[in-house]
Amino acid sequence: VSVTAAAGFTAAGVHAGVKAGGSLDLAVVAADRAVPAAAVFTTNIAAAPPVVLSRRHLAEGATVRAVVLNSGCANAATGAAGDAAARAMADTLAGRLGERPEQILVASTGPIGTHLPVDTVIGGIGAAVERLGSTPEAGTAAATAIMTTDSVPKQSTASGGGIVVGGMAKGAGMVRPDMATLLAVVTTDAVVEAGRLDAVLRRAVDGSFHSLNVDGCASTNDTVVVMASGASGIAADGLFDEMLGRVCRDLAHQLAADAEGASRVVTIAVEGAADDASARRAGRLVADSALVRAAFYGGDPNWGRLVGALGAGDVAFDPSAVTIAFGDVVVAKDGVAAPYPEAELLEALAVGDFTVRLAIGSGPGSAAVLTTDLTPDYVRFNGERS
Amino acid sequence: VSVTAAAGFTAAGVHAGVKAGGSLDLAVVAADRAVPAAAVFTTNIAAAPPVVLSRRHLAEGATVRAVVLNSGCANAATGAAGDAAARAMADTLAGRLGERPEQILVASTGPIGTHLPVDTVIGGIGAAVERLGSTPEAGTAAATAIMTTDSVPKQSTASGGGIVVGGMAKGAGMVRPDMATLLAVVTTDAVVEAGRLDAVLRRAVDGSFHSLNVDGCASTNDTVVVMASGASGIAADGLFDEMLGRVCRDLAHQLAADAEGASRVVTIAVEGAADDASARRAGRLVADSALVRAAFYGGDPNWGRLVGALGAGDVAFDPSAVTIAFGDVVVAKDGVAAPYPEAELLEALAVGDFTVRLAIGSGPGSAAVLTTDLTPDYVRFNGERS
Repeated sequence: VSVTAAAGFTAAGVHAGVKAGGSLDLAVVAADRAVPAAAVFTTNIAAAPPVVLSRRHLAEGATVRAVVLNSGCANAATGAAGDAAARAMADTLAGRLGERPEQILVASTGPIGTHLPVDTVIGGIGAAVERLGSTPEAGTAAATAIMTTDSVPKQSTASGGGIVVGGMAKGAGMVRPDMATLLAVVTTDAVVEAGRLDAVLRRAVDGSFHSLNVDGCASTNDTVVVMASGASGIAADGLFDEMLGRVCRDLAHQLAADAEGASRVVTIAVEGAADDASARRAGRLVADSALVRAAFYGGDPNWGRLVGALGAGDVAFDPSAVTIAFGDVVVAKDGVAAPYPEAELLEALAVGDFTVRLAIGSGPGSAAVLTTDLTPDYVRFNGERS
Repeated sequence: VSVTAAAGFTAAGVHAGVKAGGSLDLAVVAADRAVPAAAVFTTNIAAAPPVVLSRRHLAEGATVRAVVLNSGCANAATGAAGDAAARAMADTLAGRLGERPEQILVASTGPIGTHLPVDTVIGGIGAAVERLGSTPEAGTAAATAIMTTDSVPKQSTASGGGIVVGGMAKGAGMVRPDMATLLAVVTTDAVVEAGRLDAVLRRAVDGSFHSLNVDGCASTNDTVVVMASGASGIAADGLFDEMLGRVCRDLAHQLAADAEGASRVVTIAVEGAADDASARRAGRLVADSALVRAAFYGGDPNWGRLVGALGAGDVAFDPSAVTIAFGDVVVAKDGVAAPYPEAELLEALAVGDFTVRLAIGSGPGSAAVLTTDLTPDYVRFNGERS
């Protein structure tokens, strides 16, 4: 049900020793040979050494043999020692697999500013290569080894037309976010060349991970990788694009649902924008507002805060044409308050997930952005010294 | 000690009845005649009717006779009825003072999306005009009448070189921010023409209210007005500029210190930026991060979050040249962890205000941005239904 679901891939998750205790903390996802791949990385100016290295490797070859990922340390803000540590991870895995280092991608997640125990990680890579397997258990071990404060591993699969797409992910904003890098690896047995894979991945990420509130803040380590083994012998088509989008959306939803300190997932559905990108920006303006998210926590249909958050951004809209609904209950129409059955709505919003619908004009653009409520628990978790 | 400190101004604060109970909820600050004035308004696209009206009035005349301000209702997201209500406020005060409506500015603060009780406000304006006075008590009544969830009125005065500058302010991000418009009125008896007043006010606001974290969100109603009576007969000079800046900074600090749910004020001092504007943007990136502010709550010198927040923005910097200090204790140098006396620092950060110093390069730009910690109380206050 994960990165091993598609033919042509193996995975492993082991305890290298980066984390204290015996938790799994090192994962390898490998293709049987170097295959077309694509990735989306953080836009953070302070991108971590593994991101800098992986970006370069992907630019040099358009193919990837394997990805090595560790939890317990982000290897970020670690200077030249961090660069060397990321290179050592790639070199070690390349040596074990008989590949050039350029065919290896590296990802790390955990606290920022602490140095990676390189020997420990190198030992773990050796152990992981020996355990590489194509069973569901091997995939789950890999998905478990990249967890930080995630309470469950996140995995998703889609299949159809003879093609399989499978993926794993960890962390996101609000999951103890100083160790909250978003990491995701997706595999498929479709036949896809790297250029097309890149285009389809970017669209899928826009509609999933980029539509998830990550505290308004791209982490230093965010990485989403897709590899295509071609083992099915079937060329990617529109169905493949849809399946890749579905797996990414499902993983993003799992991340939101497991966000530490959050009590519910709220979907901001925007329509009537000039285009989909504007709709997504509008949704993120709302999802990034601490005020709005605190109101979600209280189940308060405080539409004035939504208008305020929207207006503070750079998405053009006509305030007098805005309609806002919580679920199916319209609370504001044409920019002013609309009468609604208050007791019923408050009852409906008292607990659980819900959707807020924002119509901001008459354009064709729409988007759905996921966020969670801002809770006292979130602040407590993130106020603790790590 | 407030808007009545400078010669040539009177003020009043009354209970009109917008708020339940007997709290003061309507203020008037009037010059003895129409005088040069300048103002900075919210950049929110959904600017409220009083902002739209005041912006137009200020553009039509360059002089202002009086400002009328109410609390208890923001008159925002109220459509054509809201426009009419704002006009009625200006028309009523103009009639009472024998001025044209264009010489009147209007400001409102309170919940968004509810309609202003126009008759109530008009009655209050009549009562306020009858009580206009130049005593400190009259100034304090005006400062009290614009409070929403502020626990104390905010007033400040500076004097020197024969000139007096006095001001009042209310609310800001985190002061129950759906009624958290920032309103400020500053008066002076210096001789200043409107163009110069505008330039000096903009600089003063950049270094004060615009350097205060307002939840990353400009409200629908933010308004800062300055009026210059010229009653001192002394022309404004560099000392005046400095005093106006000092009064605005003092008011901004009072706003931060009174922020509901906050337990401390944190100053983000940025240096080494390309210019002051970049430094201010860098400081705001940090101050706008929920993660960073949650760490402040816990007294956690989590510098990795600062780097992550900074890197997620659009201010250019070299991550390997960043130095970060809490108070005088350097915790990261040249982008990597620096050894520091941990127990001592944690002790120093356990309670109370502190300063974080961020050196992001070798440029001449610097800025100090004020924020508060993000606390469980903040979320509780803002999660309550209003």
